Amino acid sequence: MVEKLTSVKNARVKEWKKLQTRKGRKQQGRYLLEGWHLVNEALQADRGLHELIGTKEELAAHPDIVARFKEVYSVTPAIMAAVTETVTPQGIMVVADLPDLHQVATDLSGAWLFLDRVQDPGNVGTMVRTADAAGFAGVVAGDGSADLFSPKVVRSMQGSQFHLALYEGDLKKWFEDVKQAGYPVYGTQLNPAAKDFRIVTPQGGFALVMGNEGRGMSEELLKQTTANLYIPMRGQAESLNVAVSAGILMFELADALNG
Amino acid sequence: MVEKLTSVKNARVKEWKKLQTRKGRKQQGRYLLEGWHLVNEALQADRGLHELIGTKEELAAHPDIVARFKEVYSVTPAIMAAVTETVTPQGIMVVADLPDLHQVATDLSGAWLFLDRVQDPGNVGTMVRTADAAGFAGVVAGDGSADLFSPKVVRSMQGSQFHLALYEGDLKKWFEDVKQAGYPVYGTQLNPAAKDFRIVTPQGGFALVMGNEGRGMSEELLKQTTANLYIPMRGQAESLNVAVSAGILMFELADALNG
Repeated sequence: MVEKLTSVKNARVKEWKKLQTRKGRKQQGRYLLEGWHLVNEALQADRGLHELIGTKEELAAHPDIVARFKEVYSVTPAIMAAVTETVTPQGIMVVADLPDLHQVATDLSGAWLFLDRVQDPGNVGTMVRTADAAGFAGVVAGDGSADLFSPKVVRSMQGSQFHLALYEGDLKKWFEDVKQAGYPVYGTQLNPAAKDFRIVTPQGGFALVMGNEGRGMSEELLKQTTANLYIPMRGQAESLNVAVSAGILMFELADALNG
Repeated sequence: MVEKLTSVKNARVKEWKKLQTRKGRKQQGRYLLEGWHLVNEALQADRGLHELIGTKEELAAHPDIVARFKEVYSVTPAIMAAVTETVTPQGIMVVADLPDLHQVATDLSGAWLFLDRVQDPGNVGTMVRTADAAGFAGVVAGDGSADLFSPKVVRSMQGSQFHLALYEGDLKKWFEDVKQAGYPVYGTQLNPAAKDFRIVTPQGGFALVMGNEGRGMSEELLKQTTANLYIPMRGQAESLNVAVSAGILMFELADALNG
């Protein structure tokens, strides 16, 4: 059944709009995915999907996908623009359940990425996507990091939230759990004792911590790492973009872990 | 001598504003660098600097740097906002000569990054910065790539334009020159004949080509490469962000070349 909506003041439209904010997402326990690529990823993962919302044209173009949803809303471009943040809305979106980001991870083997106050949503989303590509088990966004389900992060993750485990929480606690399980926690900060990232050989698992864009990792957490890694620079650039560094480190460490 | 400007309609202010556009930059042969970090990088490189433009507060806070400029303009926040594109202007900028992006590179040894229609300015700037960090000799932005000196690219490059050579032009011609010099041109595209990026061992030099964000490399250029490389994925992500891929490839290939 397709229901038509024409007013941006409709009660449902107002609820969807609230999903742009962290508060709205927490209250409803849901978030928005925009574009056919993400709608398809969500369908494949088959985890708690609700309303499919599209313009008349987009819905008409994909009857097979529309048929898989119980609740379908045909909306005007004005409603689409009001609900999404994007400059050029793609004309299709779906409301999905937020995963439980505070459950307890029982298996800490494999590769984990920890984000210590990484604030740019594009960086956070790109790192989740890269962690997925590198075969990581999960990503933990420490307190003070960008919200994992903000529209910008969701756009950059490109569906990787369906491929690995995502958590939010106090990294101090996570450090303890990883070390308790017998795996190293690798910080990333240039200091006299830091090790070239190419020489470590984790066995069975590890956690890699990336810090804030401008300030790096917090002092308190740095003290709790097993070792700190650095990427030797050949040129004159003072630093690398955090998502680029994370990519270089994740692919190298995943190789070292897997053999 | 510090000259005060208070009107956004001042002729000089209008000229500076034009530097936001490609046309304006070409006409004046100059571009804008914003923020103290970039002003310092430009001073260190000491290549064709012109007006230093700042708010009263910023100029007063750095008399030593101000003393190094012949032309200094004290402007209102309104003028600053009119000239820069940034949401929160940093209150200081400098006008610098554009380098000659079409000169002929005589030495093609070492590592080179070629950009085939990479369109996002943030990606282009981040890749130049990463190429600098990886010790690359230069970057060539092929036709259809983002302008290397647009404000967004300049922001993301973080001063790396002063550390390596930058060029613009027809990549077909550059491919020929690199191959003529005896070095391989590595494309990046998943195809049945592509090689794992970790197994190549360039001698003396190479060029790495990164393609467009959505469409990859152009068919025509792909046919002209020496070999095509791919990054094996362990997870389920379909692809990597182009700046992240470039970072992984550049650091690995620089190691293979130098080590």
